[in-house]
Amino acid sequence: MPQFKVPDVAIQRLSIYLRALRKLEENRILSSLKLAELIGTSDGQVRKDLAYFGEFGIPGQGYQVKKLRREITRILGLDRTWKVALAGVGKLGSALLVYPGLRESGFPIRVLFDNDPAKIGKVREGLRIQSSETIPQVVSQEEIKIGIITTPAEAAQKVTNQLIKGGVRGILNFAPTIIVHPSELKLKNVDLSTNLETLSYFLK
Amino acid sequence: MPQFKVPDVAIQRLSIYLRALRKLEENRILSSLKLAELIGTSDGQVRKDLAYFGEFGIPGQGYQVKKLRREITRILGLDRTWKVALAGVGKLGSALLVYPGLRESGFPIRVLFDNDPAKIGKVREGLRIQSSETIPQVVSQEEIKIGIITTPAEAAQKVTNQLIKGGVRGILNFAPTIIVHPSELKLKNVDLSTNLETLSYFLK
Repeated sequence: MPQFKVPDVAIQRLSIYLRALRKLEENRILSSLKLAELIGTSDGQVRKDLAYFGEFGIPGQGYQVKKLRREITRILGLDRTWKVALAGVGKLGSALLVYPGLRESGFPIRVLFDNDPAKIGKVREGLRIQSSETIPQVVSQEEIKIGIITTPAEAAQKVTNQLIKGGVRGILNFAPTIIVHPSELKLKNVDLSTNLETLSYFLK
Repeated sequence: MPQFKVPDVAIQRLSIYLRALRKLEENRILSSLKLAELIGTSDGQVRKDLAYFGEFGIPGQGYQVKKLRREITRILGLDRTWKVALAGVGKLGSALLVYPGLRESGFPIRVLFDNDPAKIGKVREGLRIQSSETIPQVVSQEEIKIGIITTPAEAAQKVTNQLIKGGVRGILNFAPTIIVHPSELKLKNVDLSTNLETLSYFLK
């Protein structure tokens, strides 16, 4: 583990290097320049990003695909499955539930919550929708560390507090609101409308 | 217009203030503290964010909901509709197409592109899927300035280049790849898997 703080954007690039590496033949040796070209960055950037975590290359040759893939997988904590709790089974939540990308990346949605009595008890994609009131117990029992929030804005703060109580430490928030949270919780806002409105400002 | 660069995160908060204001009675006068509470930030933050753009408050009283709503709408460029081009009509693209939040926020998807001959010509939500080869002409003709990319990673760079050629200046990218682009283009990466993998790193 690095002794200092690694910038978020470097972590994001590791995730993207890994995706490029997965498409290559295992025994291939790759220069940092070649890897950089594959994902559209510079070789200096590749070397700098990897240097945060150690020496993975063979001097004068480059990186072995298989080894680098394994190392980045380990660094990112992707050598395991992270079960995900989804709160808010509306239109967006339902879309995410059938989106295969989450399961394929090792982040399967395993529990569903909603506060609508008409939805609680219904089964979607093999999962029974549970009451949001039960978030702390269920999340703790299932040892879930990651939550996805697709509730309306008004419900997002309460759901976050409940998820934290149950032991969740990372949240992807799709609700268009700012969530107050302790610094131990890693929260990413991925609301589409906010992102689009920010674009609009810059395009005026 | 401010003479200096306003941070992205302040623009994001303006978008969230606006959403809170839309739910309030028009003639209400609101203190910065009250507005801050509604969205979970501090009154100092609210005043600082708004001060980038001018003086909107009534000294000693606060902000009139109607006026502040109008001003933020104008600042964000939301006093108009921004037509959106969607490239990549796969599972995620199709989910976005039926998601009502985009149209409701003033960002209706108006043209669809795909490079799969089996999809080109098909109609989805009233829109005919067009060949990605035609992006520059169609986007330019329709005067579209915003693109959403939901293609596989391999196609994202080419599609970006085509969109830029057609005059697009802002892109939301869902493809799990780094896109090389001129600084005049505002690009936001909203890929779910990359976001989740970044969370995983911090949770290990």
